[in-house]
Amino acid sequence: MLKENETLDDILIKDFKIIQQKGGFRFGTDAVLLAEYAGIKQGETVMDLCTGNGIVPILLCAKKEPKYVCGLEISENACDMARRSVKLNGIEDKVEIICGNVCDYRKFEAGSFDVVTANPPYRKANDGMKSPDKMKAAARHEVFCELEDVVSAAAWLLKSGGRFVMVHRTERMAEIFAVMIKHRLEPKRMRLVCHDKNALPRLFTVDARKDGATGLVTDMPLYVTDEKGEKTPEMEAVYFG
Amino acid sequence: MLKENETLDDILIKDFKIIQQKGGFRFGTDAVLLAEYAGIKQGETVMDLCTGNGIVPILLCAKKEPKYVCGLEISENACDMARRSVKLNGIEDKVEIICGNVCDYRKFEAGSFDVVTANPPYRKANDGMKSPDKMKAAARHEVFCELEDVVSAAAWLLKSGGRFVMVHRTERMAEIFAVMIKHRLEPKRMRLVCHDKNALPRLFTVDARKDGATGLVTDMPLYVTDEKGEKTPEMEAVYFG
Repeated sequence: MLKENETLDDILIKDFKIIQQKGGFRFGTDAVLLAEYAGIKQGETVMDLCTGNGIVPILLCAKKEPKYVCGLEISENACDMARRSVKLNGIEDKVEIICGNVCDYRKFEAGSFDVVTANPPYRKANDGMKSPDKMKAAARHEVFCELEDVVSAAAWLLKSGGRFVMVHRTERMAEIFAVMIKHRLEPKRMRLVCHDKNALPRLFTVDARKDGATGLVTDMPLYVTDEKGEKTPEMEAVYFG
Repeated sequence: MLKENETLDDILIKDFKIIQQKGGFRFGTDAVLLAEYAGIKQGETVMDLCTGNGIVPILLCAKKEPKYVCGLEISENACDMARRSVKLNGIEDKVEIICGNVCDYRKFEAGSFDVVTANPPYRKANDGMKSPDKMKAAARHEVFCELEDVVSAAAWLLKSGGRFVMVHRTERMAEIFAVMIKHRLEPKRMRLVCHDKNALPRLFTVDARKDGATGLVTDMPLYVTDEKGEKTPEMEAVYFG
């Protein structure tokens, strides 16, 4: 199952595992925060945009019981890794990895998903140095799709009342809210994420409702680690809850 | 100086005082948060929209050294109280209270202020029961002006690079960011305010820059009181800093 330069890693939930590239993009807190904030209910259908090595679909199946999860990813290499991880975890009956660009969302049926999740590239294409590793560059910079493409795709794919759940950097929060509202995805819940009590919030999760009414609930800020550098109980709950 | 049904209250900074109505709208944490977040520098000109009894102009003069502060307020009664408070504090050389509707902002010169502050009514006109007290109703509900009027006024009044600082409810944050961006006021800093560690953030302060570039800094969330119900050191700093 493993190719050269790949590792097989435990995701620490049940016996689920993931194939990752040595020195390549490896999953982190962001994917875990997203999978929890999505709050998937039994039997829901989910599209995960920019799925990369498939960590979000795998986390969702490890934690909850979605009916069907589609992971959309532009890199053939990442798709190949994701498909092998899906098989390895025995969830090929409910998870499908599709290779394609988020911008081509119209090839999917409009209104066909209950939930759309996304851990998209955080930085604009021209914002700082890009990684020489193509997969890493595409995971971090808006090389193949921009914020508004991701939001447009979510608005297209979701049924009315469906949820778009995203993790992103706080520095782009205002822009994100504005683009969501433009596409009739109304932010309903958001949570700031701080590394610890002494660090400014750098990440946030947001849950937007297609055609929802105005009104945002701001959850308690989440602190990832305590004074000793250990996971806080809240973060443990995010991981294992 | 005092009329019937009025009290003279200390604002607890230097010897500054404010005239308030018994049983009417009385200043609270919101105005204090706003005055601090405005971060007025010596010699700046400030417009305070929806100034009510003038608490924000008075706080700004008690804490910092603006060159000129204009308070705009639609209620004649509130303007009268505000003007007497200004006189009482001996700051009539730098504070002017003007009676008028925020919607008529074009009567002021465009681009003529360094900073615009606002602690506007938080609730839409049709959102719940209105107070039978006219001044209270106008302070809480969007009776005379709506969110977009306040933001439009700020965009008109500010010079390019000027700051619009507002305190508002978190439930309207997404809408606020979207309307600000629409009017070329780019949110640059925001801070969530929680009553205490166990309460969801209900208020936030935002500092937007006219014609600014994208990029929001989220400050550390502010907790107003500690476990004993006493002001936290951070809140003391907001008050007296």
